[in-house]
Amino acid sequence: MTLVNQQILLVSRPLGEPTTENFRLIEQDVPPLVDGQVLVRHHYLSLDPYMRGRMNDGRSYATPQALDAVMGGGTVGEVLESRHPKFRVGDHVTGMGGWQHYSVVDASAPSALRTVDTTHIPLSAYLSVMGMTGVTAWLGLTDIIAPKAGETVIVSAASGAVGGVVGQLAKARSCRAVGVAGGPEKCAYVVDELGFDACVDYKAHSDLRSLLGALKQACPDGIDGNFENVGGMILDAIMIRMNDFGRIAMCGMIAGYNGEPLPMAHPGLILSSRLKVQGFIVSEHLARWPTALQELGAMTAAGTLKYRESIAEGLSSAPDAFLGLLKGLNFGKQLVRLT
Amino acid sequence: MTLVNQQILLVSRPLGEPTTENFRLIEQDVPPLVDGQVLVRHHYLSLDPYMRGRMNDGRSYATPQALDAVMGGGTVGEVLESRHPKFRVGDHVTGMGGWQHYSVVDASAPSALRTVDTTHIPLSAYLSVMGMTGVTAWLGLTDIIAPKAGETVIVSAASGAVGGVVGQLAKARSCRAVGVAGGPEKCAYVVDELGFDACVDYKAHSDLRSLLGALKQACPDGIDGNFENVGGMILDAIMIRMNDFGRIAMCGMIAGYNGEPLPMAHPGLILSSRLKVQGFIVSEHLARWPTALQELGAMTAAGTLKYRESIAEGLSSAPDAFLGLLKGLNFGKQLVRLT
Repeated sequence: MTLVNQQILLVSRPLGEPTTENFRLIEQDVPPLVDGQVLVRHHYLSLDPYMRGRMNDGRSYATPQALDAVMGGGTVGEVLESRHPKFRVGDHVTGMGGWQHYSVVDASAPSALRTVDTTHIPLSAYLSVMGMTGVTAWLGLTDIIAPKAGETVIVSAASGAVGGVVGQLAKARSCRAVGVAGGPEKCAYVVDELGFDACVDYKAHSDLRSLLGALKQACPDGIDGNFENVGGMILDAIMIRMNDFGRIAMCGMIAGYNGEPLPMAHPGLILSSRLKVQGFIVSEHLARWPTALQELGAMTAAGTLKYRESIAEGLSSAPDAFLGLLKGLNFGKQLVRLT
Repeated sequence: MTLVNQQILLVSRPLGEPTTENFRLIEQDVPPLVDGQVLVRHHYLSLDPYMRGRMNDGRSYATPQALDAVMGGGTVGEVLESRHPKFRVGDHVTGMGGWQHYSVVDASAPSALRTVDTTHIPLSAYLSVMGMTGVTAWLGLTDIIAPKAGETVIVSAASGAVGGVVGQLAKARSCRAVGVAGGPEKCAYVVDELGFDACVDYKAHSDLRSLLGALKQACPDGIDGNFENVGGMILDAIMIRMNDFGRIAMCGMIAGYNGEPLPMAHPGLILSSRLKVQGFIVSEHLARWPTALQELGAMTAAGTLKYRESIAEGLSSAPDAFLGLLKGLNFGKQLVRLT
């Protein structure tokens, strides 16, 4: 029986803000397996801000997404057919299956496919708290910010998939956790459901001075660690409020993903406050994943790590859901259900 | 016998560029010593860019210089009178004596006064390669940039007191050492006398594109470590040319010392190139000084660490010499001879 695969390709690069015109949905037969390959049927596709960067052709940390090729992306699913001894039909697996219903994976390639246990943890969580998202939060907090008990840790995009985990892990380390998010609904979620100590609604502050006032209220003892997802004025304000020897984990600068100039207003603060500012990419620290997943898994299974998913239905909804993610329309982890 | 002390006070804070009007020279009797105190006659006063920051009232890493008080600054000299058992008349000492001929020092305070050996090393060197200047270079290079053999290290203000040491220490670690300096004469000195591999004359490049071209030629394999003394367009260009996992030691941003806005154009590079950018102040790492001075002392005594001094004659010349330093008119370490 030949399976028909639906796939979404990148067909043009955006100039500025991307549109659905940059994508095309096509159908293609799934090829037969050769030895060492595994056929995976995807249950969920992960949508993430880094994908915007890959749509550009310029220099970035990730290879640009090729044109007329299937959009890359993290997936969870089940093994439909296997010609690799390590994988059996029915196994739940996570991998980089891309924006499509099925993927044929050379399962010997390192980290290509990982079997996951869904006894205590739902499959979709392996794309959020138990996947790249959760490990990103863990790594930036643990290895770069390295907060001490009693310190103040702030995170932008706090209601997002990464930000929410950062704050909860900071609380677990006896820190004051403060979020920055857009709108009262997201801020209420960050404080009431995720348990942050405070959340600043950046949409209520149109200028630096006003934002600084709100930060001062939310962070009365200053800021020791900043997990940066946004950049621009929010980063500028946080830097002014940072304590001596503060640490900034640079995880994302979504405010500049469409090519807008996004300068840092006061880099002199790095010197005068003796800050450490460090960029990182989770996939370059694979040796740390087991330690991260141990803590994240224990908290997830115990139900103490809260998270929320925004689920779009069907592959064809992926482009719109992705554009919404870039505008902050999602609430928590943005997934696409493919089954 | 009463000694008359000449002193230079800060009498007003500059709005923008400082002028000689911000300073006043006065005369005052040296008070008699009490137990635990030492009277030092200064031979040399050190002039340093950080003093510009202290002239401002705003938040900075250093306490602002008080108005109508003697300007602070590093000095070397000899003990004229001692009521402290650790110091004897005639001892050569280094301390923070300030812009004046004599200082009365509470010698028990930690790091207030340090006896130095002038058998193989000239006294003035304890204000440059064997003092804060040399240890600043050593610390930023060794502890923040931590270069591996074969890597490329660049330093701005390369003909300056700190920059010259950075490059020579980088060469001693088998790195490619590249300087940035203003004008062909300084660049020739950096390459021909200090032994850097290349030096970019920033004055020959009025825009970012042109500067980038010169950096590409001077750093064909990219840049792994940047010791930053200047900020602004030079930093922007260096960041674009930096390799993945590059390190930036933030030592100074002299381009912004007069209050001009000095944004960093592309902070997104910290993320995309996974850079580490870290500010530091040499006086906060006293535990590292002995290790630093051991290497610096061996090189200085052996004559393998080259340095140059610009010596202004007499205390009254200090304000003009300081203003010249801020404009880059000095060549090597700026000192004032007080004897």
